[in-house]
Amino acid sequence: MKILVINSGSSSLKYQLFDMPSEYPLCVGLVDRIGLANSSLTHTVHRDGQELVFRVEVPIPDHKSALLKVTGMLIDRDAGVVAGLEEVSAIGHRVVHGGEEFAATTLVTEAVKSKIQELISLAPLHNPPNLLGIEVAEELFPEAKQVAVFDTAFHQSMPPRAYRYAIPQDLYSDQGIRAYGFHGTSHQYVAKRAQAVLGKPDAKLITVHLGNGCSITAIAGGISMDHSMGLGPMGGLVMGTRCGDIDPSVIFHLIRERGFSVKEVNEVFNKKSGLLGLCGYSDMRDVKKAIAAGEEDARLAYELYAYRIKKYVGAYCAALNGLDALIFTAGVGENDPDMREAVCADMDYLGIRLDQSKNRQGSGLREIQEGSSPVKVLVVPTNEELEIGLQTHALVQEG
Amino acid sequence: MKILVINSGSSSLKYQLFDMPSEYPLCVGLVDRIGLANSSLTHTVHRDGQELVFRVEVPIPDHKSALLKVTGMLIDRDAGVVAGLEEVSAIGHRVVHGGEEFAATTLVTEAVKSKIQELISLAPLHNPPNLLGIEVAEELFPEAKQVAVFDTAFHQSMPPRAYRYAIPQDLYSDQGIRAYGFHGTSHQYVAKRAQAVLGKPDAKLITVHLGNGCSITAIAGGISMDHSMGLGPMGGLVMGTRCGDIDPSVIFHLIRERGFSVKEVNEVFNKKSGLLGLCGYSDMRDVKKAIAAGEEDARLAYELYAYRIKKYVGAYCAALNGLDALIFTAGVGENDPDMREAVCADMDYLGIRLDQSKNRQGSGLREIQEGSSPVKVLVVPTNEELEIGLQTHALVQEG
Repeated sequence: MKILVINSGSSSLKYQLFDMPSEYPLCVGLVDRIGLANSSLTHTVHRDGQELVFRVEVPIPDHKSALLKVTGMLIDRDAGVVAGLEEVSAIGHRVVHGGEEFAATTLVTEAVKSKIQELISLAPLHNPPNLLGIEVAEELFPEAKQVAVFDTAFHQSMPPRAYRYAIPQDLYSDQGIRAYGFHGTSHQYVAKRAQAVLGKPDAKLITVHLGNGCSITAIAGGISMDHSMGLGPMGGLVMGTRCGDIDPSVIFHLIRERGFSVKEVNEVFNKKSGLLGLCGYSDMRDVKKAIAAGEEDARLAYELYAYRIKKYVGAYCAALNGLDALIFTAGVGENDPDMREAVCADMDYLGIRLDQSKNRQGSGLREIQEGSSPVKVLVVPTNEELEIGLQTHALVQEG
Repeated sequence: MKILVINSGSSSLKYQLFDMPSEYPLCVGLVDRIGLANSSLTHTVHRDGQELVFRVEVPIPDHKSALLKVTGMLIDRDAGVVAGLEEVSAIGHRVVHGGEEFAATTLVTEAVKSKIQELISLAPLHNPPNLLGIEVAEELFPEAKQVAVFDTAFHQSMPPRAYRYAIPQDLYSDQGIRAYGFHGTSHQYVAKRAQAVLGKPDAKLITVHLGNGCSITAIAGGISMDHSMGLGPMGGLVMGTRCGDIDPSVIFHLIRERGFSVKEVNEVFNKKSGLLGLCGYSDMRDVKKAIAAGEEDARLAYELYAYRIKKYVGAYCAALNGLDALIFTAGVGENDPDMREAVCADMDYLGIRLDQSKNRQGSGLREIQEGSSPVKVLVVPTNEELEIGLQTHALVQEG
């Protein structure tokens, strides 16, 4: 069975076509700068153990044109991977915000689309292009089953003590102000992989997703128990350009005493904060180059980023009353042994002892703790697209 | 030597006169509702093991009138405790915000007063009446040494990784946006008392101050290493009416999507949130009555309050890489064994095991952990006025 996975953003459309149940990615691609000058399509085919890359630069004015280009590639004589579009049995769509309505992956219906529409107020930047992606896919793949996979769904298992804020009760009950959490597909995927390796279905895990966005989840028995992101994807850990946790007083102070507008503060916290705000570089690789060049601000940014993770690990050890494994994933989590070391340094009180040499060797899923460490430390490469494909496949099989 | 301690608020003035070094509180009093109808002065004298309470209801239009009433009481034939005001050698003033300038208690000079004035932008509600208290005291006690004791001073030892926010660097360097921390006098006092009992000057401590305001401090070797309050006294733990930690997205969402003004959100977060927002009661005793009456919102409020503390304890165990003692203080911390139990429940992974029966017995400073508990759990009654008196006495002795 062939499953297409679509991640439709405001000006981009990412896709992968999986053969299931083999999990083989037949092709993977990206339409970039939709509606902008110099839009492009990059399409990579996996064939006979080789990667063939096809790239087209051509005006792509909207999401429908984008998906039309993709369908053209899928059945292209050279770049194609299927004989006809009807071979695609189902399409799994990434949808950022599922609110309290969606605690699991679901078949798209008119009611589901209305709900995704309603939830735009909670995810004004993401839900609109996600919904648009579904609509153009329905048009171009009328035979395929459309499935929505929500970033928030995995975290719907959190108990009220973790997802409620200490603000007036009606702001929750009437207006839905609570923590929803994000990156759920990634946290769920790496937790499942880790559990399989640990052979312990009730394992207490902390998954640390360090990409452009960063978040951390406390998991017990495969269930999300607490998570660092809240109503939106701004709080918690320090990120590339987002501030993470901050005293709400700072917002009121900047507006009242320093002449900022609400919009400016929002913009600063989202796009000019995090590593970028602290030291001028949003990419961790650049931060590390700057540290090597002796830049003190970069060193502090790195330290603060690690310290924030460290404190969340401690907090979630308390929330879970224990820890079987600490799991690092996504760009920085998978590729920066120095950051893993900085997080795990001086954590033996919590039972975490990193093996310095294992931390710096190998690739793929692996354990990197000392032999005597009560807590295992794992690197688990994430694969959100595959997880969307797997969940879509499972749902279609059930039906 | 006699030391007067003054805590001057916007519409109240609290005072205590200590005999030093005996630490004996000769009298303690409160001028309430300054500038409002029905202002009053309550003055309690400790004499021969007895408490004599004097109460006057009389219009008190301003802080100078308030302190004049107090001086009248101090030398009154019946209520008085000194023969003349010149017996008061020094006055210790509580000042909420000392910014980065004051890492210790200091003698008041013109320069110090200017700096307290400048810091009003960081503490608009507190520094103005604090400064006013100093000015009227200078006028009425021209011979006494005036000393400023800052709520923020104890936390000036925090490292940058703990006090910096991940926002643009110039907001810190040019505008002083950072975590300052509060309740420093209380955290410092109970930490010193605990250290004396533990006999371990380098002890790793977590002090949990649960009053109307709530905060928590990580302390190593007597030094504040991290703290839950930030730029203002709104973040961190859940409080009576303040929200504690909250995703900054919530503020932007309420303004953008729900029609709140900035001022309204600030008001809601400060005065209508916390326990009050969650269940309608700001006083923990009322919350507990409501739980006993079966109110589900009150039960959740209690659980959330405890869970937030629990997570900070875990976070600070990570920050300190260990813990010698967990210390509860202030109203709820000293008087609510159920809350101490809720915080310490299921925390044996962190080495915390409460003794149920010790937790419910005794009074004053005491240990309440199980014999086998690696971490000690202490109740230490706080006394901010005495700490201000002690620091004032020490400074005057030095000079």
